[in-house]
Amino acid sequence: MSPRREPTDPLWSERTVVERPGRGEVRRDPVTIEEPLEIRVDGRSLIVLMRTPGHDLDLAAGLLLTEGLIRGANEIGTLARCPDPDHPERANVVAATLAGARPPDWERLRRTTLANAACGLCGRTTIESVRATVKPLPASHAGQTPVPVAVLAGLPGALRSRQGAFERTGGLHAAGIFDAGGAPLVVREDVGRHNAVDKAIGALCLEGGLPREEETAILMVSGRAGFEIVQKAAAARIPIVAAVSAPSTLAVDLAVELNLTLAAFLREGRCNVYSAVERIGDPA
Amino acid sequence: MSPRREPTDPLWSERTVVERPGRGEVRRDPVTIEEPLEIRVDGRSLIVLMRTPGHDLDLAAGLLLTEGLIRGANEIGTLARCPDPDHPERANVVAATLAGARPPDWERLRRTTLANAACGLCGRTTIESVRATVKPLPASHAGQTPVPVAVLAGLPGALRSRQGAFERTGGLHAAGIFDAGGAPLVVREDVGRHNAVDKAIGALCLEGGLPREEETAILMVSGRAGFEIVQKAAAARIPIVAAVSAPSTLAVDLAVELNLTLAAFLREGRCNVYSAVERIGDPA
Repeated sequence: MSPRREPTDPLWSERTVVERPGRGEVRRDPVTIEEPLEIRVDGRSLIVLMRTPGHDLDLAAGLLLTEGLIRGANEIGTLARCPDPDHPERANVVAATLAGARPPDWERLRRTTLANAACGLCGRTTIESVRATVKPLPASHAGQTPVPVAVLAGLPGALRSRQGAFERTGGLHAAGIFDAGGAPLVVREDVGRHNAVDKAIGALCLEGGLPREEETAILMVSGRAGFEIVQKAAAARIPIVAAVSAPSTLAVDLAVELNLTLAAFLREGRCNVYSAVERIGDPA
Repeated sequence: MSPRREPTDPLWSERTVVERPGRGEVRRDPVTIEEPLEIRVDGRSLIVLMRTPGHDLDLAAGLLLTEGLIRGANEIGTLARCPDPDHPERANVVAATLAGARPPDWERLRRTTLANAACGLCGRTTIESVRATVKPLPASHAGQTPVPVAVLAGLPGALRSRQGAFERTGGLHAAGIFDAGGAPLVVREDVGRHNAVDKAIGALCLEGGLPREEETAILMVSGRAGFEIVQKAAAARIPIVAAVSAPSTLAVDLAVELNLTLAAFLREGRCNVYSAVERIGDPA
């Protein structure tokens, strides 16, 4: 599976800056681009979100998948920039049509997607709402080899080495999907943590490279692991989530419920595993 | 102005964890709590967001202010936990009524609040939409003393020293509002960056302590400075935003438009200033 070719959209733009303390010299520094993107589905506006331009079709495909509107690329009819060539903001609009038999449940989407993916009034209700659309991951079976800790330990460096724009601006999150041996399948950067995850998932979705059931893959994120990160991984059937930083209670509880392996504080060759620990091997 | 008294809600809860590599010992670690909160206004659901419980009334008041539903605490009629004592999720619902003459523009709110505060289709439109509700800050006048760089340099440490829960869990963002001399007016922590800002602004709003026009105050955030952070500061009439980490293009452009001082990469006694640099003094 070859990594998807990168488009050439710049991830940063220069802005004027004065350093303090200093002599008042004005210089130009690279700054991470943040712009709104509208995603339309079957002619209706699904969401307007803030993102770093680039890989917008990946972002839209990933969001459709992780929000449960599609189960795979075969349920996308068309996916393209706004088809109106005269639209003044064509670059910031993506339009999709669905090929699946089920029309979107717009009322549910309004409550979930647009209200920051929280759909209930307590953690318990929220988790049950996700379980209504996302099945637990299958237990690892006897023939499956756990992912060695050494493979996990290499992922933060592998992610960082592909974060060209972060090095320039310090303002981008990254998400990568890796195979069981630690080889990168795709890496994406964005000003928003959840967008980076959706771009990575959407890229694999569009090229048919999402893990098959019982196939091991790892979603690695540069920051924290909150509820939505675990929810997105589960929707994409990625059984292991690894994060450089801390998890939240709702992320841990959802990972336990869905039998997804959540590893956090992945630093200096060590990590804390909060659920489904049998997927992480340990030669010690 | 005395800091608001802290309620005793815990910010973390323990979860089971196994360290890898390791001998498989199971221990209990503190993890940042993430739970949904529903905010109702005049009997209608405004938003469901993920937050760390505690200071929920501050959060609701701050969100009402930064989303333009109120201009001060005097426009809040009532603000309380869900008044139904039998509601099963009473702890995760806050209900407000408005005392202002203007009813909320629900259609605008649906497009903005619920769609991640992006209200247009390009950066330009988005900024103009904010400008329609938030006036630029007044230029500093001759009698105003710039904030010394040394005061700014002390803020990250002052913020961190008040982040009790971050030290325990590594999973909380912080926002503090400081006066022109660097004295803390309020500090709040939350699993969400924007919630921490709304909680800090809401706490000052409820006690009548938001800066008066032409009064200097500083919003300091533990992470990055994106568009929404600048928008919230401007809505609260806080003329200086300082961030430990990077800004985004849209944050810089909005700060320039609104004459708000944006200082980022505030580390080791230095910072980059992207707008309205005259509010930061420089003895060098």
